[in-house]
Amino acid sequence: VNITPAIILVRPQLVENIGAAARAMMNCNLSELRLVEPRDGWPLISPQKERAAAAASGADSILENARLYKTTAEAVSDLNAVYATTARSRDMIKPVLDPRGAITEIASRPDEKIGLLFGPERTGLINDDLLCAGKIIHIPANPDFSSFNLAQSVLILAYEWLMQAAAAPLQAAPPNPNRSRLATQEELLHMFDHLERELEEGRFFSTEAMKPTMVQNLRNIFLRASLTDQEVRTFRGVITALTLDPTRKRKHG
Amino acid sequence: VNITPAIILVRPQLVENIGAAARAMMNCNLSELRLVEPRDGWPLISPQKERAAAAASGADSILENARLYKTTAEAVSDLNAVYATTARSRDMIKPVLDPRGAITEIASRPDEKIGLLFGPERTGLINDDLLCAGKIIHIPANPDFSSFNLAQSVLILAYEWLMQAAAAPLQAAPPNPNRSRLATQEELLHMFDHLERELEEGRFFSTEAMKPTMVQNLRNIFLRASLTDQEVRTFRGVITALTLDPTRKRKHG
Repeated sequence: VNITPAIILVRPQLVENIGAAARAMMNCNLSELRLVEPRDGWPLISPQKERAAAAASGADSILENARLYKTTAEAVSDLNAVYATTARSRDMIKPVLDPRGAITEIASRPDEKIGLLFGPERTGLINDDLLCAGKIIHIPANPDFSSFNLAQSVLILAYEWLMQAAAAPLQAAPPNPNRSRLATQEELLHMFDHLERELEEGRFFSTEAMKPTMVQNLRNIFLRASLTDQEVRTFRGVITALTLDPTRKRKHG
Repeated sequence: VNITPAIILVRPQLVENIGAAARAMMNCNLSELRLVEPRDGWPLISPQKERAAAAASGADSILENARLYKTTAEAVSDLNAVYATTARSRDMIKPVLDPRGAITEIASRPDEKIGLLFGPERTGLINDDLLCAGKIIHIPANPDFSSFNLAQSVLILAYEWLMQAAAAPLQAAPPNPNRSRLATQEELLHMFDHLERELEEGRFFSTEAMKPTMVQNLRNIFLRASLTDQEVRTFRGVITALTLDPTRKRKHG
């Protein structure tokens, strides 16, 4: 089992953002939240406590287990590596990664304890905070509107973590639980024969020369759709209903 | 220049989420927001207007340009393809993609107008909404805590769009030489109406109770196939040939 990264919120201002960050973390299988000097203190008291819980929407255990630190340096002291998210480029010479690159790197070191630093709303991390981090994560954004909400920034990193962790199993089995089984080519061919026979009778094919192209175009529609065996039976029922019903015979007869 | 996807919020309940979705969109270079029956109406009035604006945090132009629709079907009628985000697996046989796979696919068709559907908080999209979509986007998540906040879901798709757009040149379109353009949802709907009207006459629907499921299963076949406008015309020709030809009339009459 991998050690999961810790999310470290430095001087967060709004308790709603702490709650929303906890929710995003739990959505994405992260659990360890660290707080450096949150504006409203920690643990929260009413009414902030309730406002954070509403935003957490059930991720209470993350809030309850969140640990409080006096400084960023203290919050990262036990970690093997720290990545700081920042929108601004600073006078710091450190490697800059995008969220995907950073998480790929983190996932490749499963035995190390990693921290992801997020700065306060509006102002972001200051240089003293960045000194605690070995690398910078830059979230790409619209250059004219680049400031993400704090919980949204947490989500982007948490989501990349989730995608990275899910990568192997996801490729294995495409989730399609209700699919019975795909039709065989033989079943499809019988369906095509049925349809084309009826179209022939219905004088659908304007000329013999055109017929092969028209047949091919029609078949492609169904081939693209990857029909199940049940859908083949349903569609043969459709052909029959359109051509053989007594009501229709009377109407057109 | 690529056409950017439209974000469609179906029956959103909280104006804060509409605002936060607008902010996430602008962060990620998306601009077109469509709203189907927002709970508090549209345009907003005080105090909801101010609450949405606070959450939008400067993305006001997206809120101001958001368009209101009465139904999901109306909101998607001009689109070439619709992807629905849903946490639950339904009895729908449609391709299921993760956000990255979906956005990769969308980015590979730069000339098509795409919509991304998001359901209401808590309840999510209902089957009638899903009928308007050809494909499903499943956001992977902690199975024990899988419900993302609405604006967070929008962000994940918007972020994938941003990352895709930032990545090097787009791959060429998938091989589909005869593809003129994809049919609009409106053209598809007319085709469905035509087919279902004829099936009704042909007594295809064994009982009224079964009809919605049967209609849904049939439509899904064609939604999955991503028909071109030409294919829609061809298939309407098929329906006509199967039901109206004089030869057939004589045979069955």
